[in-house]
Amino acid sequence: MGASAEQELGTKLNLKLDANGLSTAVTVDADSGQVLMVAFMNPEALQKTLATGKATYWSRSRQKFWVKGEESGNTQEVVDVLIDCDQDAVVVKVRQKGAACHNGFESCFYRQVGPGESGRIELRTIAKPMMDPKQLYKK
Amino acid sequence: MGASAEQELGTKLNLKLDANGLSTAVTVDADSGQVLMVAFMNPEALQKTLATGKATYWSRSRQKFWVKGEESGNTQEVVDVLIDCDQDAVVVKVRQKGAACHNGFESCFYRQVGPGESGRIELRTIAKPMMDPKQLYKK
Repeated sequence: MGASAEQELGTKLNLKLDANGLSTAVTVDADSGQVLMVAFMNPEALQKTLATGKATYWSRSRQKFWVKGEESGNTQEVVDVLIDCDQDAVVVKVRQKGAACHNGFESCFYRQVGPGESGRIELRTIAKPMMDPKQLYKK
Repeated sequence: MGASAEQELGTKLNLKLDANGLSTAVTVDADSGQVLMVAFMNPEALQKTLATGKATYWSRSRQKFWVKGEESGNTQEVVDVLIDCDQDAVVVKVRQKGAACHNGFESCFYRQVGPGESGRIELRTIAKPMMDPKQLYKK
Protein backbone atom coordinates (compact mmCIF):
# COMPACT_ATOMS: atom_id res chain seq x y z
CA MET A 1 0.00 0.00 0.00
CA GLY A 2 1.49 3.39 -0.99
CA ALA A 3 1.80 6.29 1.46
CA SER A 4 -1.36 7.98 0.24
CA ALA A 5 -3.39 4.75 0.28
CA GLU A 6 -2.07 3.95 3.77
CA GLN A 7 -3.13 7.42 4.96
CA GLU A 8 -6.60 7.06 3.43
CA LEU A 9 -7.38 3.37 3.79
CA GLY A 10 -4.88 1.98 6.29
CA THR A 11 -4.94 1.33 10.01
CA LYS A 12 -2.19 3.71 11.13
CA LEU A 13 -3.22 6.92 12.93
CA ASN A 14 -1.33 9.81 11.35
CA LEU A 15 -3.22 13.01 12.06
CA LYS A 16 -2.73 15.57 9.28
CA LEU A 17 -2.13 18.99 10.83
CA ASP A 18 -2.65 22.53 9.58
CA ALA A 19 -0.04 25.31 9.76
CA ASN A 20 -0.81 25.69 13.49
CA GLY A 21 -0.34 21.99 14.18
CA LEU A 22 -4.06 21.38 14.58
CA SER A 23 -6.81 19.23 13.13
CA THR A 24 -10.54 19.90 13.15
CA ALA A 25 -12.74 18.16 15.71
CA VAL A 26 -16.49 17.98 15.13
CA THR A 27 -18.32 17.01 18.28
CA VAL A 28 -21.71 15.38 17.92
CA ASP A 29 -24.28 14.08 20.38
CA ALA A 30 -23.83 10.29 20.45
CA ASP A 31 -27.58 9.70 20.72
CA SER A 32 -29.21 12.33 18.51
CA GLY A 33 -26.29 12.84 16.11
CA GLN A 34 -26.72 16.64 16.43
CA VAL A 35 -23.53 18.63 15.81
CA LEU A 36 -22.73 20.30 19.13
CA MET A 37 -19.55 22.24 18.36
CA VAL A 38 -16.44 22.49 16.20
CA ALA A 39 -13.04 22.85 17.84
CA PHE A 40 -9.41 21.86 17.34
CA MET A 41 -7.16 19.05 18.47
CA ASN A 42 -3.46 18.40 18.18
CA PRO A 43 -2.21 14.80 18.38
CA GLU A 44 -1.74 15.05 22.14
CA ALA A 45 -5.28 16.37 22.67
CA LEU A 46 -6.62 13.43 20.66
CA GLN A 47 -4.50 11.07 22.75
CA LYS A 48 -5.83 12.61 25.97
CA THR A 49 -9.39 12.36 24.63
CA LEU A 50 -8.92 8.66 23.92
CA ALA A 51 -7.04 7.91 27.14
CA THR A 52 -9.34 9.76 29.55
CA GLY A 53 -12.70 9.42 27.79
CA LYS A 54 -13.23 13.16 28.30
CA ALA A 55 -13.24 15.33 25.17
CA THR A 56 -10.05 17.40 25.28
CA TYR A 57 -9.29 20.11 22.73
CA TRP A 58 -6.51 22.58 22.08
CA SER A 59 -7.68 26.11 22.87
CA ARG A 60 -6.30 28.49 20.26
CA SER A 61 -7.25 31.57 22.29
CA ARG A 62 -5.68 30.30 25.51
CA GLN A 63 -2.94 28.19 23.86
CA LYS A 64 -3.46 25.26 26.19
CA PHE A 65 -5.32 21.99 26.50
CA TRP A 66 -8.98 22.45 27.15
CA VAL A 67 -10.83 19.65 28.88
CA LYS A 68 -14.36 20.59 27.86
CA GLY A 69 -16.43 21.38 30.94
CA GLU A 70 -13.50 21.75 33.32
CA GLU A 71 -14.81 25.19 34.31
CA SER A 72 -18.52 24.97 33.55
CA GLY A 73 -19.03 21.37 34.65
CA ASN A 74 -20.56 20.64 31.24
CA THR A 75 -18.27 17.75 30.39
CA GLN A 76 -18.35 15.49 27.35
CA GLU A 77 -18.06 11.75 27.90
CA VAL A 78 -16.54 10.24 24.77
CA VAL A 79 -18.46 7.36 23.22
CA ASP A 80 -16.69 7.03 19.87
CA VAL A 81 -14.08 8.77 17.70
CA LEU A 82 -14.04 8.59 13.90
CA ILE A 83 -11.46 10.00 11.48
CA ASP A 84 -11.84 11.08 7.88
CA CYS A 85 -10.17 9.90 4.68
CA ASP A 86 -7.14 12.22 4.75
CA GLN A 87 -6.95 12.23 8.56
CA ASP A 88 -7.28 15.99 9.03
CA ALA A 89 -10.61 15.87 10.87
CA VAL A 90 -12.20 13.75 13.58
CA VAL A 91 -15.79 13.28 14.66
CA VAL A 92 -16.11 12.88 18.42
CA LYS A 93 -19.35 11.29 19.57
CA VAL A 94 -20.12 12.30 23.14
CA ARG A 95 -22.66 12.28 25.93
CA GLN A 96 -22.89 15.99 26.72
CA LYS A 97 -23.63 17.13 30.25
CA GLY A 98 -25.74 20.31 30.11
CA ALA A 99 -25.14 22.83 27.36
CA ALA A 100 -22.25 22.45 24.90
CA CYS A 101 -22.28 26.16 24.05
CA HIS A 102 -20.92 28.84 26.38
CA ASN A 103 -24.01 30.86 25.49
CA GLY A 104 -26.19 28.27 27.22
CA PHE A 105 -27.50 26.54 24.10
CA GLU A 106 -27.39 22.76 23.78
CA SER A 107 -25.41 23.18 20.52
CA CYS A 108 -23.28 26.08 19.26
CA PHE A 109 -25.25 25.85 16.00
CA TYR A 110 -28.38 27.66 17.19
CA ARG A 111 -28.71 30.06 14.25
CA GLN A 112 -29.90 29.37 10.74
CA VAL A 113 -28.38 31.19 7.75
CA GLY A 114 -30.83 32.24 5.07
CA PRO A 115 -32.76 35.04 3.41
CA GLY A 116 -34.65 37.24 5.86
CA GLU A 117 -37.82 39.23 5.18
CA SER A 118 -35.82 41.74 3.16
CA GLY A 119 -34.41 38.96 1.01
CA ARG A 120 -30.93 39.63 2.35
CA ILE A 121 -29.03 36.78 4.00
CA GLU A 122 -29.29 36.96 7.76
CA LEU A 123 -29.20 34.79 10.87
CA ARG A 124 -32.25 33.52 12.69
CA THR A 125 -32.04 31.94 16.13
CA ILE A 126 -33.85 28.60 16.00
CA ALA A 127 -33.18 27.22 19.49
CA LYS A 128 -33.71 28.31 23.06
CA PRO A 129 -30.92 28.36 25.63
CA MET A 130 -31.16 25.43 28.05
CA MET A 131 -29.09 27.20 30.70
CA ASP A 132 -28.44 30.80 31.72
CA PRO A 133 -24.91 31.51 30.44
CA LYS A 134 -24.33 33.79 33.43
CA GLN A 135 -24.70 30.77 35.69
CA LEU A 136 -22.50 28.52 33.54
CA TYR A 137 -19.18 29.85 34.77
CA LYS A 138 -20.06 30.72 38.36
CA LYS A 139 -19.36 27.33 39.84
CA MET B 1 -25.75 44.99 21.70
CA GLY B 2 -21.93 45.09 21.77
CA ALA B 3 -19.79 43.81 18.90
CA SER B 4 -19.14 40.46 20.56
CA ALA B 5 -22.80 39.96 21.53
CA GLU B 6 -23.87 40.92 17.99
CA GLN B 7 -21.43 38.35 16.56
CA GLU B 8 -22.65 35.63 18.92
CA LEU B 9 -26.34 36.39 19.34
CA GLY B 10 -27.28 38.79 16.56
CA THR B 11 -28.78 38.43 13.12
CA LYS B 12 -25.91 39.73 11.00
CA LEU B 13 -23.85 37.22 9.02
CA ASN B 14 -20.17 37.98 9.62
CA LEU B 15 -18.16 34.86 8.89
CA LYS B 16 -15.01 34.71 11.02
CA LEU B 17 -12.10 33.63 8.84
CA ASP B 18 -8.82 31.90 9.60
CA ALA B 19 -5.40 33.09 8.36
CA ASN B 20 -6.24 31.64 4.93
CA GLY B 21 -9.56 33.47 4.73
CA LEU B 22 -11.57 30.30 5.33
CA SER B 23 -14.16 28.93 7.73
CA THR B 24 -14.91 25.30 8.51
CA ALA B 25 -17.90 23.62 6.88
CA VAL B 26 -19.29 20.43 8.36
CA THR B 27 -21.59 18.67 5.94
CA VAL B 28 -24.22 16.36 7.37
CA ASP B 29 -26.91 14.19 5.84
CA ALA B 30 -30.16 16.12 6.29
CA ASP B 31 -32.14 12.97 7.02
CA SER B 32 -29.84 10.77 9.11
CA GLY B 33 -27.72 13.56 10.64
CA GLN B 34 -24.55 11.57 9.81
CA VAL B 35 -21.46 13.73 9.31
CA LEU B 36 -20.46 13.23 5.68
CA MET B 37 -17.37 15.43 5.33
CA VAL B 38 -15.49 18.46 6.61
CA ALA B 39 -14.31 21.11 4.16
CA PHE B 40 -13.75 24.86 3.90
CA MET B 41 -15.74 27.85 2.73
CA ASN B 42 -14.90 31.47 2.22
CA PRO B 43 -17.72 34.04 2.30
CA GLU B 44 -18.23 33.75 -1.47
CA ALA B 45 -18.47 29.94 -1.31
CA LEU B 46 -21.10 30.28 1.40
CA GLN B 47 -22.97 32.81 -0.73
CA LYS B 48 -22.85 30.47 -3.74
CA THR B 49 -24.04 27.60 -1.56
CA LEU B 50 -27.04 29.64 -0.41
CA ALA B 51 -27.81 31.11 -3.83
CA THR B 52 -27.56 27.91 -5.86
CA GLY B 53 -28.66 25.31 -3.31
CA LYS B 54 -25.62 23.23 -4.25
CA ALA B 55 -22.92 22.83 -1.62
CA THR B 56 -19.92 24.83 -2.81
CA TYR B 57 -16.59 24.82 -1.01
CA TRP B 58 -13.19 26.40 -1.44
CA SER B 59 -10.64 23.80 -2.46
CA ARG B 60 -7.36 24.48 -0.67
CA SER B 61 -5.43 22.04 -2.88
CA ARG B 62 -6.78 23.46 -6.15
CA GLN B 63 -7.28 27.05 -4.90
CA LYS B 64 -10.66 27.41 -6.54
CA PHE B 65 -14.37 27.04 -5.87
CA TRP B 66 -15.44 23.44 -5.67
CA VAL B 67 -19.04 22.64 -6.42
CA LYS B 68 -19.26 19.26 -4.75
CA GLY B 69 -20.04 16.57 -7.32
CA GLU B 70 -19.22 18.67 -10.38
CA GLU B 71 -16.83 15.92 -11.54
CA SER B 72 -18.19 12.81 -9.88
CA GLY B 73 -21.89 13.64 -10.22
CA ASN B 74 -22.29 13.11 -6.48
CA THR B 75 -23.84 16.50 -5.78
CA GLN B 76 -25.16 17.84 -2.49
CA GLU B 77 -28.55 19.53 -2.49
CA VAL B 78 -28.60 22.01 0.39
CA VAL B 79 -31.52 21.71 2.80
CA ASP B 80 -30.36 23.96 5.63
CA VAL B 81 -27.30 25.94 6.79
CA LEU B 82 -26.53 26.67 10.45
CA ILE B 83 -23.74 28.79 11.91
CA ASP B 84 -22.03 28.57 15.28
CA CYS B 85 -21.72 31.06 18.12
CA ASP B 86 -18.55 32.83 16.96
CA GLN B 87 -19.38 32.40 13.25
CA ASP B 88 -16.25 30.49 12.28
CA ALA B 89 -18.02 27.25 11.36
CA VAL B 90 -21.15 26.26 9.48
CA VAL B 91 -23.15 23.05 9.40
CA VAL B 92 -24.53 22.33 5.93
CA LYS B 93 -27.42 19.89 5.87
CA VAL B 94 -27.66 18.20 2.49
CA ARG B 95 -29.27 15.49 0.45
CA GLN B 96 -26.22 13.66 -0.87
CA LYS B 97 -26.33 11.95 -4.24
CA GLY B 98 -24.23 8.77 -4.11
CA ALA B 99 -21.07 8.73 -2.02
CA ALA B 100 -19.74 11.87 -0.31
CA CYS B 101 -16.21 10.47 -0.08
CA HIS B 102 -13.88 10.21 -3.06
CA ASN B 103 -12.97 6.74 -1.77
CA GLY B 104 -16.52 5.59 -2.49
CA PHE B 105 -17.81 5.60 1.08
CA GLU B 106 -21.08 7.30 1.98
CA SER B 107 -19.19 9.43 4.52
CA CYS B 108 -15.50 10.37 4.77
CA PHE B 109 -15.64 9.19 8.39
CA TYR B 110 -15.45 5.46 7.71
CA ARG B 111 -12.71 4.64 10.23
CA GLN B 112 -12.91 4.40 14.01
CA VAL B 113 -10.00 5.52 16.19
CA GLY B 114 -9.27 3.31 19.20
CA PRO B 115 -7.08 0.68 20.79
CA GLY B 116 -6.38 -2.31 18.55
CA GLU B 117 -5.60 -5.86 19.67
CA SER B 118 -2.11 -4.79 20.71
CA GLY B 119 -3.59 -2.03 22.89
CA ARG B 120 -2.03 0.62 20.65
CA ILE B 121 -4.29 3.23 19.05
CA GLU B 122 -5.14 2.33 15.49
CA LEU B 123 -7.82 2.81 12.86
CA ARG B 124 -10.51 0.29 12.05
CA THR B 125 -12.69 0.57 8.94
CA ILE B 126 -16.32 0.35 10.05
CA ALA B 127 -18.15 0.97 6.78
CA LYS B 128 -18.24 -0.54 3.31
CA PRO B 129 -17.79 1.54 0.16
CA MET B 130 -21.08 2.14 -1.62
CA MET B 131 -19.39 2.85 -4.95
CA ASP B 132 -16.17 1.80 -6.65
CA PRO B 133 -13.92 4.88 -6.38
CA LYS B 134 -12.37 4.00 -9.75
CA GLN B 135 -15.76 4.56 -11.35
CA LEU B 136 -16.46 7.79 -9.46
CA TYR B 137 -14.36 10.06 -11.63
CA LYS B 138 -14.74 8.36 -14.99
CA LYS B 139 -17.94 10.10 -16.02
